[in-house]
Amino acid sequence: MDYFARPLSALIEEFAKLPGIGKKTAQRLAFHVLNMNNEDANSFVKSIINAKKNIKYCSNCFNLTDIDPCKICSSKKRDDSIICVVEDPKDIVAMERTRDFNGLYHVLHGSISPMEGIGPDEIKIKELLNRLKDDKVKELILATNPNIEGEATAMYIGKLVKPMGIKTTRIAHGIPVGGDLEYADEVTLAKALEGRREF
Amino acid sequence: MDYFARPLSALIEEFAKLPGIGKKTAQRLAFHVLNMNNEDANSFVKSIINAKKNIKYCSNCFNLTDIDPCKICSSKKRDDSIICVVEDPKDIVAMERTRDFNGLYHVLHGSISPMEGIGPDEIKIKELLNRLKDDKVKELILATNPNIEGEATAMYIGKLVKPMGIKTTRIAHGIPVGGDLEYADEVTLAKALEGRREF
Repeated sequence: MDYFARPLSALIEEFAKLPGIGKKTAQRLAFHVLNMNNEDANSFVKSIINAKKNIKYCSNCFNLTDIDPCKICSSKKRDDSIICVVEDPKDIVAMERTRDFNGLYHVLHGSISPMEGIGPDEIKIKELLNRLKDDKVKELILATNPNIEGEATAMYIGKLVKPMGIKTTRIAHGIPVGGDLEYADEVTLAKALEGRREF
Repeated sequence: MDYFARPLSALIEEFAKLPGIGKKTAQRLAFHVLNMNNEDANSFVKSIINAKKNIKYCSNCFNLTDIDPCKICSSKKRDDSIICVVEDPKDIVAMERTRDFNGLYHVLHGSISPMEGIGPDEIKIKELLNRLKDDKVKELILATNPNIEGEATAMYIGKLVKPMGIKTTRIAHGIPVGGDLEYADEVTLAKALEGRREF
């Protein structure tokens, strides 16, 4: 890095800190930024400052938002009797793309993981239970990831919610659409079999 | 992109404009920036502003620099009788890494490419000739890239400089160290043969 002028190597280092950006890519990005016209560079810088300043968690569902409550929570068109619980704001985007869900969300911001020292209090479970106190919610869809932590989190929430008399469902496991039976792992295949439905 | 709050999707779009950054990576980077603490985000923003403001071309060699003339041009330890001509500031870094060259550089900022409408006047050839006017320079190493444009540029400069009585050399072509004869293309192999030296 010594071969570059200091402000340039500083910029390369900053890019290299980003996830999945190696040294060579960081160099390429830094050179690209240097070659941008000032207007474009300003708009890049402003978008960072603006996002950092204006993006907050929705006080209701903890999705990322610039208005509070967020667009989804404040929409009159959404069904507020059904809440889909996800681990991450990115999961909401994935769900919304299906256009098949019209309820509200709750973002946990993680999953229970004893290995990483993340207990139920570190994620937004308390906040979820608070939302269930008024009797509006009829169904809770647990859409945490289908891995050990996600399953444990879903089970933990399921147990807490059961006594409240709210219907709790878990998204289905199975072979992905377009997938191939031959290459499916046995656990997924077993889950697909277990979740079979009448044709 | 509609699923994200406006300041967030703006940030994602800005990242997606960078070379080699696709939609998914742009999302990941934007989320990472949102999760940065304010101090880190500020230092990222400042490094961009600082690099844009302070990095200029060296008025002598046209390398990127924050001081003018640049560190290499103003160094007393460098041999100013030999100039290595490269296409790009990144090539200087590659040359410096060899630790085998102690002369000065000249960055052309491109190569002659009729296909892309880049003629000799679009790159820093005039500026190179100006540097050769005082009789200090004894050798010019043409280290443009070994492709059609780079060769044409080297040949063009070679012809211009010849009448000035300055020794002009071209970096050697050949099999890369660690490379494999079996997989070398015939042009490279022919060049390697042509450039053979006594053992």
